[in-house]
Amino acid sequence: MASTFGNNIKISIFGQSHSEAIGVTMDGLPAGITLDFEALSTFLQRRAPGHSDLTTPRKETDEPKFLSGLLNGVTCGAPLTAIIENTDTRAQDYSNMEKMPRPGHADFTAHAKYKGFEDVRGGGHFSGRLTAPLCIAGGICKQILEKEGIFIHAEIAEIGGQTKDFQKVLEEAKAKGDSLGGIVSCHVEGLPVGLGAPIFDGVENKISQAIFAIPAVKGIEFGDGFQSAKLCGSQNNDAFYYDETGKVQTKTNHCGGVLGGITVGTPLFFRVAMKPTPSIAQKQETILYEKAESAQLEIKGRHDPCVVLRAVPCVEAATAIALYDLYLDAKKEG
Amino acid sequence: MASTFGNNIKISIFGQSHSEAIGVTMDGLPAGITLDFEALSTFLQRRAPGHSDLTTPRKETDEPKFLSGLLNGVTCGAPLTAIIENTDTRAQDYSNMEKMPRPGHADFTAHAKYKGFEDVRGGGHFSGRLTAPLCIAGGICKQILEKEGIFIHAEIAEIGGQTKDFQKVLEEAKAKGDSLGGIVSCHVEGLPVGLGAPIFDGVENKISQAIFAIPAVKGIEFGDGFQSAKLCGSQNNDAFYYDETGKVQTKTNHCGGVLGGITVGTPLFFRVAMKPTPSIAQKQETILYEKAESAQLEIKGRHDPCVVLRAVPCVEAATAIALYDLYLDAKKEG
Amino acid sequence: MASTFGNNIKISIFGQSHSEAIGVTMDGLPAGITLDFEALSTFLQRRAPGHSDLTTPRKETDEPKFLSGLLNGVTCGAPLTAIIENTDTRAQDYSNMEKMPRPGHADFTAHAKYKGFEDVRGGGHFSGRLTAPLCIAGGICKQILEKEGIFIHAEIAEIGGQTKDFQKVLEEAKAKGDSLGGIVSCHVEGLPVGLGAPIFDGVENKISQAIFAIPAVKGIEFGDGFQSAKLCGSQNNDAFYYDETGKVQTKTNHCGGVLGGITVGTPLFFRVAMKPTPSIAQKQETILYEKAESAQLEIKGRHDPCVVLRAVPCVEAATAIALYDLYLDAKKEG
Amino acid sequence: MASTFGNNIKISIFGQSHSEAIGVTMDGLPAGITLDFEALSTFLQRRAPGHSDLTTPRKETDEPKFLSGLLNGVTCGAPLTAIIENTDTRAQDYSNMEKMPRPGHADFTAHAKYKGFEDVRGGGHFSGRLTAPLCIAGGICKQILEKEGIFIHAEIAEIGGQTKDFQKVLEEAKAKGDSLGGIVSCHVEGLPVGLGAPIFDGVENKISQAIFAIPAVKGIEFGDGFQSAKLCGSQNNDAFYYDETGKVQTKTNHCGGVLGGITVGTPLFFRVAMKPTPSIAQKQETILYEKAESAQLEIKGRHDPCVVLRAVPCVEAATAIALYDLYLDAKKEG
Repeated sequence: MASTFGNNIKISIFGQSHSEAIGVTMDGLPAGITLDFEALSTFLQRRAPGHSDLTTPRKETDEPKFLSGLLNGVTCGAPLTAIIENTDTRAQDYSNMEKMPRPGHADFTAHAKYKGFEDVRGGGHFSGRLTAPLCIAGGICKQILEKEGIFIHAEIAEIGGQTKDFQKVLEEAKAKGDSLGGIVSCHVEGLPVGLGAPIFDGVENKISQAIFAIPAVKGIEFGDGFQSAKLCGSQNNDAFYYDETGKVQTKTNHCGGVLGGITVGTPLFFRVAMKPTPSIAQKQETILYEKAESAQLEIKGRHDPCVVLRAVPCVEAATAIALYDLYLDAKKEG
Repeated sequence: MASTFGNNIKISIFGQSHSEAIGVTMDGLPAGITLDFEALSTFLQRRAPGHSDLTTPRKETDEPKFLSGLLNGVTCGAPLTAIIENTDTRAQDYSNMEKMPRPGHADFTAHAKYKGFEDVRGGGHFSGRLTAPLCIAGGICKQILEKEGIFIHAEIAEIGGQTKDFQKVLEEAKAKGDSLGGIVSCHVEGLPVGLGAPIFDGVENKISQAIFAIPAVKGIEFGDGFQSAKLCGSQNNDAFYYDETGKVQTKTNHCGGVLGGITVGTPLFFRVAMKPTPSIAQKQETILYEKAESAQLEIKGRHDPCVVLRAVPCVEAATAIALYDLYLDAKKEG
Repeated sequence: MASTFGNNIKISIFGQSHSEAIGVTMDGLPAGITLDFEALSTFLQRRAPGHSDLTTPRKETDEPKFLSGLLNGVTCGAPLTAIIENTDTRAQDYSNMEKMPRPGHADFTAHAKYKGFEDVRGGGHFSGRLTAPLCIAGGICKQILEKEGIFIHAEIAEIGGQTKDFQKVLEEAKAKGDSLGGIVSCHVEGLPVGLGAPIFDGVENKISQAIFAIPAVKGIEFGDGFQSAKLCGSQNNDAFYYDETGKVQTKTNHCGGVLGGITVGTPLFFRVAMKPTPSIAQKQETILYEKAESAQLEIKGRHDPCVVLRAVPCVEAATAIALYDLYLDAKKEG
Repeated sequence: MASTFGNNIKISIFGQSHSEAIGVTMDGLPAGITLDFEALSTFLQRRAPGHSDLTTPRKETDEPKFLSGLLNGVTCGAPLTAIIENTDTRAQDYSNMEKMPRPGHADFTAHAKYKGFEDVRGGGHFSGRLTAPLCIAGGICKQILEKEGIFIHAEIAEIGGQTKDFQKVLEEAKAKGDSLGGIVSCHVEGLPVGLGAPIFDGVENKISQAIFAIPAVKGIEFGDGFQSAKLCGSQNNDAFYYDETGKVQTKTNHCGGVLGGITVGTPLFFRVAMKPTPSIAQKQETILYEKAESAQLEIKGRHDPCVVLRAVPCVEAATAIALYDLYLDAKKEG
């Protein structure tokens, strides 16, 4: 049950970096939703590589092909499946990955878990490429939420510890054959009060479960997060008040729009920490399986010096999936 | 589906702070496990209040009563249910919570979600008291994991931004009628390689989902977490090597023991950020529902100046539940 | 994951025939529902033994004690847990069940599955007594559905192959120390069109999954069921028409109110086959575990000559749970 | 959550009769299983139409195309997705289905549930064609179970009430433009004792849930089923004994190999009732949506006079999926 998500809308992601295709099935979409394919395509292009020299030069059109679930572009109630065919694959680049696991990658853990039967080509099912179907599903959920007045917006907050001039630090890292991590922040506006639930199915539990689906994510914090751990209650509590329309608001938003796992109706805010791309051009220490000895690895494939750029729509997508599932929970309670 | 967790072992938590009882059902425990009740009791006492003047003076023996699932102290394969009866409750302390939501608490979101029908007494189902059944379930999972050689240990890393002399900062906060947050760190030793899965059911996704069940948690980071976002790949990647026994190890542990959502077999490490206890003695700005106007609130109940102390076993419990569920996943793959 | 049910409302049943208590947790009930405790008690009494000499003379008041989920008799949004304490237990009656499995019972399969650690007393978690918490949960769902105009009614269709004078055949069987099976039919009126779904989550799939939770059930058929297998399409198809109110109706109801897994809006109808109670007073052939040899067993406990009488409310309860879960599915689609 | 199944292996079926493709994703297959594609193809051919004049003349090669989850024909641990492209579709045959629902079909219920947005062509997601991906998933599960010594065999027990000379009754029905139902029986040999669980996740609950995924199924009975409802306990109980190898057996198999929801280790046996194919050549009474009035319908498409022939492998497939999921449950308990 690795690649499925959701209580109300079931998202099932499939595919490997170099398999015939990658894709996603969404079971539970209501009938009668007109998809905006152009908007979806634009959304997917934000994730797709090849825009600048700072993302992998692999050519991927990433145009989804819809196999089911639609009739004339409108959801028909049946599960929606979309795939992206894998075309520009160069498996030879990855040949020594079968022999030596790349540090920081899932090569070793996949090898152990799947007993050597894993698809090692391009990271297999662990590839960042699998965020494309995540973005298809998330892009669709995002469109539905927007019709309900809920808007999700993520952006880069930090790269390599810097909050501005990302281009410069990235070029420096690239020049050294190195990579950088960063922080993506995400705001959601227009959420009604009452989404989420106490204990295990709260907004934070659910968004975390979805966000950690993005490779390289190593942390998440809501509102002031780790900073709030340094504050006093008198500083951190958000005072309530009625605004001019009679809606309950908070004077501050240290809580990031969630109390007790449930949306306050104020903006939802969280930050996501991403480690630096593990694939770097520098030589690295690793092991050689067949000889059970230490070895040095030089990775030749095509890689981003920083996945943070392309992760921004992924954060929006994962958030949209989690929130839409909670939105459906709230509908049945309503 | 708020208070249930797990794919393989189903944990269902019930109860409100002032209901007849609180408790938990665990469905899916294997038959034949001899529970160590003394160890469980000791574990629960770590969470229970009343140990020092820095935790709430509410008297709670927190001794679980087992309703089912055991035969002579040994699991019999049937669902195990344990309850703690609520005895020392003083509902009158909370009388104005029905009128005014406490800042930083779930009062307002619960009120909105449950349309005024929520049990407001002592925070109802949102109360920190519900971590007692979490600890019963987690304490049992922890015992089972220990028999498999897996040991979970959490500890306080920071309170109020300080890494030492917690007593002093807590007394200062208490004197001011204020509260403090903090950070709990958690280490797990003895995990086999291969627990977890890619995408949605990884170790990080699962532990996060469980950890955010603890009230006041606002962030989680694995390995170097937010710090890794500031590093280069060449610094952050953990080099592999074979140790003298032929086991694969990593020279560093920036990843916190997880790659691709799957355990590396090295120590698992993560940190949890907790906001300061929202209940403080100082006057706070809030709203008065019935008049739909601003109001001031003074909370009189019994509260911890810092929940971090009592949260330590809760972090262990949530981790144990998540890891045991993943452990069972791995068993069926094995 | 044996004793949990539901996608939207999570029912978790616990307890053994002779454990401290039996009970049920319902997670996902909306807040604000006023329970009719008298109606629930009357419903539970229909299942309770001791009404006539044809049901087991075990005294069970079967009055549920509510531990959580209610505030002044109204659901508060938190999980509802109700228990029935086990009082009148005579474990000694069952002493030789540890040595010899009763034919037709779960003794042998439980023994094998739980490796000898099962609670053998009174059938443990497999006991018909566990239908009491099923009826608590089902009775509550039934009340909620009734408020929506949906009425579930089950009745005995056959006992021992007879469609009338059940008393006579039962007394004959009892006199011989034997037992009888029978058929329970169930009608549901007032269902809206559109509950259920194609493939795995249809009305028939879901009701079946719930109905087979009742011990002794060995078959289920919807509409004409096994009889329809003998018909031609021209006989079995139900012609559609508009009634005077403009509602779509069918001239016949061979389909039992379900097409494609989805309610037609016409009465739902199905029949449930129950095998004869396996506990009989006659000597039976079985095995003696410790000697691994054949043996004869004489069961002395208190048993119903026919469980069908007490199963009628259980069929209603299981149906109510399944339909309410589907009803909530439809709400989120609506 | 209509088209997903399983606790341990997640089966997600997608596609409509005339969408781009139909298919299935299986998440949770262990890595390292070598698929026998020839055996799978042979299995799928048993379901495919076009073998005789008694099945629909629609040409469907039904050869699955594997998009993911395999590496050189061996499972790699990633979700396996297989599709069948829809080629020979003649949507014009179904044009008046948008206006008039076919009696006995899901047209009306789908129309109501999906608010007119359903894909009406060929029955859409409700089409019998969707049993092809069911058979892909089931065929794979069947292969895995066979390696464990578990063999599933279904066969026709009755057509149109006849137990022999099916050809004759079918030709008679076809000549009249009519259709027939029937009964499929299923035996499973080699099951270990201990699969399944009490209450909701028993063998009967699970198999029923899977079997009702096959269109036209209206009933299921295990062992003597409805016949056992007419028996005495002394007739229906299956006496235990040790066979020459020391294995526990039963002298009779009235229970069909299941007691308390758990396999006895003896042959599993059940029967499935299928209604006659609703599509018949005769004129039928129905309604005309747009005028909200009664109407007559003549169905011109290509249809089987009896789906029972093609349903036999579907019964095996659904059984294999259910049993494999229970098999995995037992592995984690083991």
